[in-house]
Amino acid sequence: MYVTHLQCPKCEERYESERLMQLCKCGSPLLVHYDLEKIVSGFTKDDLAGRQANLWRYLEFLPVRDPSNIVSFGEGMTPLLRLDNLSPEVSLANLYMKDESILPTGTFKDRGAAVGVTRAKELGVKVLIMPTNGNAGASWASYSAKAGIHAVIVMPEDAPSITRCEVAITGGSLFLVKGTISDAGKIVRRAVEKFGWFDASTLKEPYRIEGKKTIGLEIAEQLGWKPPDVIIYPTGGGVGLIGIHKAMRELRQIGWICGKLPRMVVVQSTGCAPIVRAWEQKKQESTPWENPHTLAYGITVPKALGDFLVLNAVYETAGCAVAVRDEEILVAHRILASREGRFVCPEGAATLAAVLKLAESGWIQPDEKVVLVNTGSGLKYPETVRAEPPTLMPGDDLPG
Amino acid sequence: MYVTHLQCPKCEERYESERLMQLCKCGSPLLVHYDLEKIVSGFTKDDLAGRQANLWRYLEFLPVRDPSNIVSFGEGMTPLLRLDNLSPEVSLANLYMKDESILPTGTFKDRGAAVGVTRAKELGVKVLIMPTNGNAGASWASYSAKAGIHAVIVMPEDAPSITRCEVAITGGSLFLVKGTISDAGKIVRRAVEKFGWFDASTLKEPYRIEGKKTIGLEIAEQLGWKPPDVIIYPTGGGVGLIGIHKAMRELRQIGWICGKLPRMVVVQSTGCAPIVRAWEQKKQESTPWENPHTLAYGITVPKALGDFLVLNAVYETAGCAVAVRDEEILVAHRILASREGRFVCPEGAATLAAVLKLAESGWIQPDEKVVLVNTGSGLKYPETVRAEPPTLMPGDDLPG
Repeated sequence: MYVTHLQCPKCEERYESERLMQLCKCGSPLLVHYDLEKIVSGFTKDDLAGRQANLWRYLEFLPVRDPSNIVSFGEGMTPLLRLDNLSPEVSLANLYMKDESILPTGTFKDRGAAVGVTRAKELGVKVLIMPTNGNAGASWASYSAKAGIHAVIVMPEDAPSITRCEVAITGGSLFLVKGTISDAGKIVRRAVEKFGWFDASTLKEPYRIEGKKTIGLEIAEQLGWKPPDVIIYPTGGGVGLIGIHKAMRELRQIGWICGKLPRMVVVQSTGCAPIVRAWEQKKQESTPWENPHTLAYGITVPKALGDFLVLNAVYETAGCAVAVRDEEILVAHRILASREGRFVCPEGAATLAAVLKLAESGWIQPDEKVVLVNTGSGLKYPETVRAEPPTLMPGDDLPG
Repeated sequence: MYVTHLQCPKCEERYESERLMQLCKCGSPLLVHYDLEKIVSGFTKDDLAGRQANLWRYLEFLPVRDPSNIVSFGEGMTPLLRLDNLSPEVSLANLYMKDESILPTGTFKDRGAAVGVTRAKELGVKVLIMPTNGNAGASWASYSAKAGIHAVIVMPEDAPSITRCEVAITGGSLFLVKGTISDAGKIVRRAVEKFGWFDASTLKEPYRIEGKKTIGLEIAEQLGWKPPDVIIYPTGGGVGLIGIHKAMRELRQIGWICGKLPRMVVVQSTGCAPIVRAWEQKKQESTPWENPHTLAYGITVPKALGDFLVLNAVYETAGCAVAVRDEEILVAHRILASREGRFVCPEGAATLAAVLKLAESGWIQPDEKVVLVNTGSGLKYPETVRAEPPTLMPGDDLPG
């Protein structure tokens, strides 16, 4: 393992990495640091060629001491699809979608769970707890079942109902709350204090980011180590964006990529856009969004713990932040399905809604290489599609 | 392309492959034949190493004239998971699950659709129609959308409801029927006669098998070209089983594998087990099952067009056929989720239910290498899981 230590990006306090850690004593999330020079003295990009097509191909960049601890369902190396049918319509010659719907529980949460649960198992965790908008809880409960860890999951009662099934059948303890993920978070915090369970809340442990980082590593490798100009990311807690940006920084540091880093674009819903608001006001942190509501349920996060890391990545790369309306999300949803054949989650559709705006405004140039991050499968959101087919009797004929 | 011709496995009539074909004039499905010697004179197993991790890595074994016609969402090379937590419990040291839930529309139907739609596009199809128990229709509608083909889908009103959404949003024409897939099939047949659309019904075009064949190619490659002793397959139309067996035969013919072919095991539900009944009676074909009903909806096929090919594969490999009760399927479903972390479809769970019987009876020996084929994701079957979590108010505490 090439991890050297954990470090706070705010107060710069260091911690050793073999201790089970949550937040820094200053309250900030901790980041994992590696001996990057040592990594690349041992191997090159070309060494990746023969490796398995999942996120564990990047083992050197991941926080695992003993590979026998790896908890895996074969997740990662998801397709980077060229949206060639859409390209002319949106006047973008190089439009891609990183399709995270093809992961074991149907969302990108599996990357954080695979690496997070692996490391939790390695450091001796027996019970973990987390608040969730549904998908992360379903994913962590699944990986925990394989790892022999008991998962306690608290989600808003409005979270996608399929995620209840996923937690229940994999044997996790499930609780609903009449409220938002922030309300669930408060219940979790009190339970952690009372019972001493491991707190797997977003960014309250350092390893979920490392799993999400592999989205960035994969995009870079799939594009022949020539990263895109723009990456568009639907932002709730923002871990994926932080992770992708961390990947690009690490890759540039070791010389596997060069030049400007991709401009990171935050997409939120106009019904819950705290980070967009902060960006518009040129702030370093967001303030809690009142009465959040959007059909893109996964990004209903009123105040993200890592907001300052998200905003920092946007500022550092000359990116931007865009809010889109639910109606725009639904239009984009249908376009992606009917033109490109992919039934994505509403959060993923939001990235196309944003790109339509950014291409029209000229913020994205027609020849720029643009990657949308579709964070999950439409299968988890049946209520976003209205299907009212006619019903026939066995003897009936089809209309022409 | 190495395809030489199409041939009827019943009357042996040959057809040329560049013509758009449906059934043989004798009413049997047609199979695709290749110049296998020519394929292997050109490349070896080792040449596969650097190829992309999807089913198109086996291009030489697939019926595509011009690779620019390929319609793909990056499907295939799904994980072959070792079920190590379960192994001791079922007294099988080498138990694997080929996890087809990690495909673009969440089921193994994507293999047949990717290859079938690709070839349909290549041969000029503009409109296709099919009866389906849901998942195949969802998959073919998705690939058709990408290919610019119009899909007309007819499914029983009891089919998994999410598949309605998938067809609707990808722009297919969807019809429900108060009846079984056989009733839907009759409606389709009349529509084909009336409108001249391409009939994409199971085995009524020759290319879906070729897509399914890649399950077998992948299993062989993933096990280092040492195929398993037993492959357990949940059987409705049976195309996957036919395809896997065809793969093994082709691989043996070119010398990439040797020795006995895997014993093919048909699993059906006691509520619809026409092929199990035929096997028990040592027949070559099945007779239609009356009043079919099982929660494993995908395998509710009263009479499969390719039953004789399925039975032939079972006889030829000294396999067997097993019927399992719905209650056994539900138990297996929960075991797979809670011990291995995978929320599978009921059809996939049926394979574990079968293996429990076969291991106990001694038909499978403890050290034999066994592969379960999980054909899809539990996400498409929310109604199979009962989740009744307690609901908390924001100020509540968790019970200990």
